[in-house]
Amino acid sequence: MKSNKVFIATSLDGFIADSDGGIGWLDTFPEINTVNTGYKTFVASIDALVMGRHTYETVLGFDVPWPYAKPVFVLSNTLKEIPGELEGKVFLQNGPLIEVLKRIHAQGHHQLYIDGGSLIQSFLKEDLIDEMVITTIPVLLGQGIPLFGAVSEHLKFRCAETTLFFETVVQNRYVRQKNV
Amino acid sequence: MKSNKVFIATSLDGFIADSDGGIGWLDTFPEINTVNTGYKTFVASIDALVMGRHTYETVLGFDVPWPYAKPVFVLSNTLKEIPGELEGKVFLQNGPLIEVLKRIHAQGHHQLYIDGGSLIQSFLKEDLIDEMVITTIPVLLGQGIPLFGAVSEHLKFRCAETTLFFETVVQNRYVRQKNV
Repeated sequence: MKSNKVFIATSLDGFIADSDGGIGWLDTFPEINTVNTGYKTFVASIDALVMGRHTYETVLGFDVPWPYAKPVFVLSNTLKEIPGELEGKVFLQNGPLIEVLKRIHAQGHHQLYIDGGSLIQSFLKEDLIDEMVITTIPVLLGQGIPLFGAVSEHLKFRCAETTLFFETVVQNRYVRQKNV
Repeated sequence: MKSNKVFIATSLDGFIADSDGGIGWLDTFPEINTVNTGYKTFVASIDALVMGRHTYETVLGFDVPWPYAKPVFVLSNTLKEIPGELEGKVFLQNGPLIEVLKRIHAQGHHQLYIDGGSLIQSFLKEDLIDEMVITTIPVLLGQGIPLFGAVSEHLKFRCAETTLFFETVVQNRYVRQKNV
C-alpha cells in the first residue's frame, strides 16, 4: 500500500513560516514541546522522506547532526551533489513527481513523508497526498508562507482524528477522500 | 462581561467562500446538516448580531423570511435606510468600531455575534475578537475569500474545545489569550 503523508504545524491562519521564513512563533506555547504529539510514531510509520531543496538546505543549516535515520529523497533540478557524510542517507531526484515516485517505490519505499511547503503544494496540485497531520498553533500571524496553494480541482478530505493538547493546540488528521 | 464572538465555517485552506462568493462547497458533506453543531446554543448565548453590509445584503437576498430574532446591527457607511418590515430588527451603524461597540453596549447588548468575512477581519485587526468557533469543512478549494487577513500584531488564541463530527468535519473553539 503506497501512501504520501504530511506532518506539519501551521498557524491558525494557515502559515508554516513568517514572511521571512521564521518559525519562532512555533514556540508560542512551549508546553507543546513537552508532550507526545505523535511525531515519533509518524516517523516510525514511514519508509522514507521526500523534501524540496529549500527544506533540505534549512535542515542542513541547523546546528545538529543530520536528524534522519531513514532515506531522504531531495527533489531538485539544480543540486548536483551532496556532502560526503550524507552519502547513503540523502538521494537527489529530479523530474516529474510521478516519475520520482516510481523510482522511490521501485526501491521498496512506499510510505513516504512529504515535507516542505512548496513540495507539499506541488504534490497537492497533482492530487498525490493521501494523509495530512496538521498541528494548529493558535496564533494569527497575519502574513507568511502558506501551507496551501492552488489546486487543480477541489480536493475532499475527511478529518479522521482530532487531538487537543493542553486545551490549547489542536492536531487534526485529514485523510484524502476520493469519490469511488 | 462583554464578548465578541465568531461562529463560521471555512474550507480546509481557510476560505469562507469561493472566489465568486459561492458557498456550495459547504454541502460537501451533507450529513453535517443533520447534526447539532452548536449553532442554536451559540445564538442563544448572544444578545445581538453585528454584520457588514455585504453579509446583510446576502441574507436579505435569501428566499426566506428575515432569520434573526435578535437585534442585528449592520455596519455601513453607505446604507441610509432599511426596509420597513425590518424596522425594530435591523439597526444601521457607522463610524469607528470602538464607537459602534460603545453604542451597542449602551443598549445593553454585551454578547455579540460578529459575522461576515470582512467585518471579522476588521475586528481582528483591532484585536476585538474574544472567541471564534470555526467549523472546518475538509475540502481544499485552492482559492477564494479568506477568513483571515492582516493583523496589527500576532494574536494568540487557545483552542479550548474541539468536536469531531462523523470522523469528517471538525469544529474548534478558539479563545483569545491575552498576556496578563
